[in-house]
Amino acid sequence: MIWVSGYKLASAVSNAGGLGLIGAGSMYPEVLREHIQKCKMATSKPFGVNVPMLYPNIEEIMKIIVEEGVKIVFTSAGNPKTWTPYLKENGITVVHVVSSTVFALKAQAAGVDAIVAEGFEAGGHNGRDETTTFTLIPMVKEQIQIPVIAAGGIANGRGMLAAMVLGADGVQVGSRFAASKESSAHENFKKTIVEVQEGGTQLTLKELAPVRLIKNKFYQDLQHLYEKCPTKEELTAFLGRARAKRGMFEGDLIEGELEIGQIAGLIHQINSAEEIVLEMMTDFESARREVQEFDF
Amino acid sequence: MIWVSGYKLASAVSNAGGLGLIGAGSMYPEVLREHIQKCKMATSKPFGVNVPMLYPNIEEIMKIIVEEGVKIVFTSAGNPKTWTPYLKENGITVVHVVSSTVFALKAQAAGVDAIVAEGFEAGGHNGRDETTTFTLIPMVKEQIQIPVIAAGGIANGRGMLAAMVLGADGVQVGSRFAASKESSAHENFKKTIVEVQEGGTQLTLKELAPVRLIKNKFYQDLQHLYEKCPTKEELTAFLGRARAKRGMFEGDLIEGELEIGQIAGLIHQINSAEEIVLEMMTDFESARREVQEFDF
Repeated sequence: MIWVSGYKLASAVSNAGGLGLIGAGSMYPEVLREHIQKCKMATSKPFGVNVPMLYPNIEEIMKIIVEEGVKIVFTSAGNPKTWTPYLKENGITVVHVVSSTVFALKAQAAGVDAIVAEGFEAGGHNGRDETTTFTLIPMVKEQIQIPVIAAGGIANGRGMLAAMVLGADGVQVGSRFAASKESSAHENFKKTIVEVQEGGTQLTLKELAPVRLIKNKFYQDLQHLYEKCPTKEELTAFLGRARAKRGMFEGDLIEGELEIGQIAGLIHQINSAEEIVLEMMTDFESARREVQEFDF
Repeated sequence: MIWVSGYKLASAVSNAGGLGLIGAGSMYPEVLREHIQKCKMATSKPFGVNVPMLYPNIEEIMKIIVEEGVKIVFTSAGNPKTWTPYLKENGITVVHVVSSTVFALKAQAAGVDAIVAEGFEAGGHNGRDETTTFTLIPMVKEQIQIPVIAAGGIANGRGMLAAMVLGADGVQVGSRFAASKESSAHENFKKTIVEVQEGGTQLTLKELAPVRLIKNKFYQDLQHLYEKCPTKEELTAFLGRARAKRGMFEGDLIEGELEIGQIAGLIHQINSAEEIVLEMMTDFESARREVQEFDF
């Protein structure tokens, strides 16, 4: 949720009854502090911060999180052993994002309180095993004792119910909120999320770090480069710097990197966070009623 | 289901209350005729034949299907316009397998009776859009008026219920039956399906035709070849002939091609087709009851 989830979205989700997360991955430490402070003023409900641990300034970010009294941290992109003890010592609930059962077991062993199991269909950075939500959730659930939150492909109440049928204890929703009114994504990017169809995203850049993005000109140019069998260095040079900011935050739909999940093909309008949460809960309940009527 | 679904498995599934399918893709025309005739003797229930349309001898295969009075045909790997009218004129129900909404719309326009929407996690040959079951089913269902059968990742009753929550009217189960007692897969391959863990399969050979298979030595050798940026011709030469037969039917776990879905990681024993169908229905009903108890 880099570039899309600041305090506005996080507090709106929390006020609507979800658990809003501030995405620290695209924030300098002092920017994060400001967002946490504003979030505390905008909601009295619990909220959390998502921290990709491989980003720079990680020590400073963790220090700020503790200083500001954040109660819930979602960690990703790194070893859960590194920061879990420090966060737990400071009374923080820790949830770690994984893409496989092996990583889920490691996170559980590191003492996290819950895991997010994220499938191949999820937007942005993703795992190497390419395990999908439909198969990852039951396989992780079978091996893990702590709560499992499903992510990847969930944008409505039916998806939420299906994930829970597969064994999830809860769900994490990214793409749908990236296209919400309170998202800090550029309007161009939000419109693109609404317009993109099934098949409009792809997992690429696997040699560096696998990332799912929209097949725009930047993606097409990347495919042309792939035809020449590039080295990692050539890929890194082609990628350049700040592609994601350029696409998602500044709205450059041509040369920017537009990270979104496959489920974008099912997102048809830009709603407020409150509308999304209410619609999901209503649709969850009606899907639950329908389940009783399946007949053979 | 090439090399695994002959008349023994198809009739056992039909006798257990499912719709058994004979996989014609690995059969010479006269072998298929024999399997159809034996299947008619082994069950009085409906069964079908799955026909990948790009295989050789397609005219002869379709002629045999009509001559033998087969009532249901699942077509795949080809244009549904080509054979649907002929099959329908002969009173046959036609179901076409697709991997995207675009292909689903084309199949519907071609006049098929239903489609199978198969996600990225499915074993064997797969689509280029890499859309997962969790996202493909609701996106296809939104655009299609004819029944949608979900495939890819479904091996138990919970998976069946989850697929139906996402919008499927029914489910197709492959990997689980590939490892059944009545499957014609080699015992070595069946044992491997039971042993394989999450992350043990990969979609590869995308330059030729994407196929999901187990990461055995053949797969590892293929990855080494990929490091050298091979041409299509080099890939074809490396693949050689009859790799799938060698792996799945003859049990060569080293050099053979072992096609199976991601959900193999959730398959822990070799059951009879009847046990599988009964267990799926029982678990479907208990998952349905559990749905009423989800509480927030």
